Amino acid sequence: MQKLQTLKGFRDFLPSKMMIRNEVIRRLKQVFEKYGFDELQTPSLEYQELLLGKCGEEAEKLMYLFQDPGNRKVGLRYDLTVPLARVVTSNQDLPKPFKRYQIQPAYRAENTQKGRYREIYQCDIDIVGSSSPISDAEILAVINDSLKSLGFEKFKIKINSRKILFSSMEKAGIPEDKWLTVAQSIDKLDKKEKDEVKKELLGKGVQKNNIDKLFDNLKNVKPDKYLSEVISLAKKLNVSKSLEFTPTLSRGLDYYTGPIFETVVEEPKIGSITGGGRYDKLLKDLGGVNYPAVGTSIGLDRVCDVIEELNLWPEILKTNSKVLVTIFSEKLIEKSLETAQKIREKNINTEIFQSIESLDKQLKYADKKGIPFAIIIGPEEMKENVLTLKDLNKKTQKKLSLEKVILKLSK
Amino acid sequence: MQKLQTLKGFRDFLPSKMMIRNEVIRRLKQVFEKYGFDELQTPSLEYQELLLGKCGEEAEKLMYLFQDPGNRKVGLRYDLTVPLARVVTSNQDLPKPFKRYQIQPAYRAENTQKGRYREIYQCDIDIVGSSSPISDAEILAVINDSLKSLGFEKFKIKINSRKILFSSMEKAGIPEDKWLTVAQSIDKLDKKEKDEVKKELLGKGVQKNNIDKLFDNLKNVKPDKYLSEVISLAKKLNVSKSLEFTPTLSRGLDYYTGPIFETVVEEPKIGSITGGGRYDKLLKDLGGVNYPAVGTSIGLDRVCDVIEELNLWPEILKTNSKVLVTIFSEKLIEKSLETAQKIREKNINTEIFQSIESLDKQLKYADKKGIPFAIIIGPEEMKENVLTLKDLNKKTQKKLSLEKVILKLSK
Repeated sequence: MQKLQTLKGFRDFLPSKMMIRNEVIRRLKQVFEKYGFDELQTPSLEYQELLLGKCGEEAEKLMYLFQDPGNRKVGLRYDLTVPLARVVTSNQDLPKPFKRYQIQPAYRAENTQKGRYREIYQCDIDIVGSSSPISDAEILAVINDSLKSLGFEKFKIKINSRKILFSSMEKAGIPEDKWLTVAQSIDKLDKKEKDEVKKELLGKGVQKNNIDKLFDNLKNVKPDKYLSEVISLAKKLNVSKSLEFTPTLSRGLDYYTGPIFETVVEEPKIGSITGGGRYDKLLKDLGGVNYPAVGTSIGLDRVCDVIEELNLWPEILKTNSKVLVTIFSEKLIEKSLETAQKIREKNINTEIFQSIESLDKQLKYADKKGIPFAIIIGPEEMKENVLTLKDLNKKTQKKLSLEKVILKLSK
Repeated sequence: MQKLQTLKGFRDFLPSKMMIRNEVIRRLKQVFEKYGFDELQTPSLEYQELLLGKCGEEAEKLMYLFQDPGNRKVGLRYDLTVPLARVVTSNQDLPKPFKRYQIQPAYRAENTQKGRYREIYQCDIDIVGSSSPISDAEILAVINDSLKSLGFEKFKIKINSRKILFSSMEKAGIPEDKWLTVAQSIDKLDKKEKDEVKKELLGKGVQKNNIDKLFDNLKNVKPDKYLSEVISLAKKLNVSKSLEFTPTLSRGLDYYTGPIFETVVEEPKIGSITGGGRYDKLLKDLGGVNYPAVGTSIGLDRVCDVIEELNLWPEILKTNSKVLVTIFSEKLIEKSLETAQKIREKNINTEIFQSIESLDKQLKYADKKGIPFAIIIGPEEMKENVLTLKDLNKKTQKKLSLEKVILKLSK
């Protein structure tokens, strides 16, 4: 085969990986839908004009842009926010607020040496068309419930507001044109020493006395009225223990206009896996209608990788198949098929071995694939009108009636 | 917004469409997994060398081929068979037979005036590494159960074998180099008059007496040994009423080597929605390992379109949300939030209205979005410790305790 490998940064998801991914997605969707979010899907390809809209040079360099067979200038989806802006603008009769989740890949020609993928599965939850703190609180509740549903026990949802951060800077005498770059340095305070960050700020041309004042201000700052409302509403939605006001949190992206949030999972030690906030001007800036919006992203690839690497879900099997019905001989094929069909009728995932081989080889197949049970129907079983059910994990076996086998497999 | 529209042939799936698509996919996956198929996903982008492999000129013209930002020659997935060939070749330790299903979009720059999409959701089920008729029979059983699970009552699974067709041609004296093109004409016999097909064959340079002999042969032909076995095994898997031996069935694609099958749904009148067969040489021809294989495609887009157009599933709602909790006043926000949260704890999909508006406006939102129930909690309800539950379809309302509301919504 000419090119056996996948492209760098692109992945095959073999069945055992899909088992985990599907379970992660199932749990997340259940939470999103419990909060009244519906699913949206958009095309992989869009017009370049749309993708490039207001994106910076850096993003443009990472985009997969090309001409299609009809010579249109097109490109692969770079994120899920630009398509959302397009959808709410071109479907203005959608009920507002529009609450949607979207789980689809985006494409970025990232440096893969940093362990980054180029086909990245994104998972975004957003509320478009509401400027109420209820919406911010609901996004926090979705994050809280999502992480719990994934089995993460100990995590913090850090929360801050761009408005608070900028007003602290203003009070410290930092000129407005430096606010965004200062915010980016401040954001590193959870990983870097204070002095290091101060040095970085000096390097960015901020005055020493302004920096000291800013650090003083950040020590004493409190949530403003809007953020206080968000926090108090979130508590009514059972988000309390995990919520942590963090005046130094600033998030990298420039488009946030109000509350910003980020989740840090502490047990297992995963680090940041969600990020989001309020972006009341972004949709208009992208060329869409002027809707306020708030939302979050969940790092789906990271979550799936961690669950697999740390074997957090040992109960998830490598296959959907619960039982393999073996075939004893040419003469008994039909008996095996009929038996399998009766088990399937009870909604138990059942495989039939696909040819006549030694029993040993058939059981090895089940073992390799991770099927937990096997059934043997030989002449002896036929005579006694029973099945031999092998538990391939416990390495035990028992002769049972079909009804009892079904009962056992249904558990 | 610069380019509001999607590219021609590409589609947004708004929530109401996603409700139907997700339900179709859920039902299909359940059947596939019941028969021991696991899910595989592969990247959207592959090396051009792989995609072009043995594809004809026609396919090449329809492909989305380009250079990525690292100047690699790449292209969008054209089908799910080429990636399957790559996966089984580069993962030779996968347990064999490898039974997988794959539901992902493929990209073809088709003429959209014919109502064709360019981002086509494909749904393939295949068994790789088995030359046993059990496998062919299982694919037939999966087709049979899939269509039943989608609620299609009356359908035919037409079955034939390329070997039978070719041997009839050989006996009729048709030269081997004409077999494939003759097969393509013969395939049209269910849509065209016999005389028209005969004329087409004459035009292809087939002798009149050979054509007449072929038509005679096809009248009397019977399933060969392999096909008879497939049919008899399929019957053990409950595929019987729907199965129909059709000596003129030939399928368009050249790569089938044995049994071929096609489903025609007669009620509702949908026509052909599955196609497949045995392709024992294709994987090797694509440059992969020499594995026999058999499988089928299900026309997912067509199925979803038909279900929507004919309103076959009126019970599928436009939204996942079961109930909207309205907000009576600023003072009562928290009460509404707490109530919503208690209902969510019972796994009922619950929305909260996102701001304080007139009740009328809130109910209109629920109506527009298709949420079937709404809850009102005003001062009166607070005093009586009840909720007002409105059934928005029946236009009735009742004061009930929270417990009774949950009971009613759980149905």
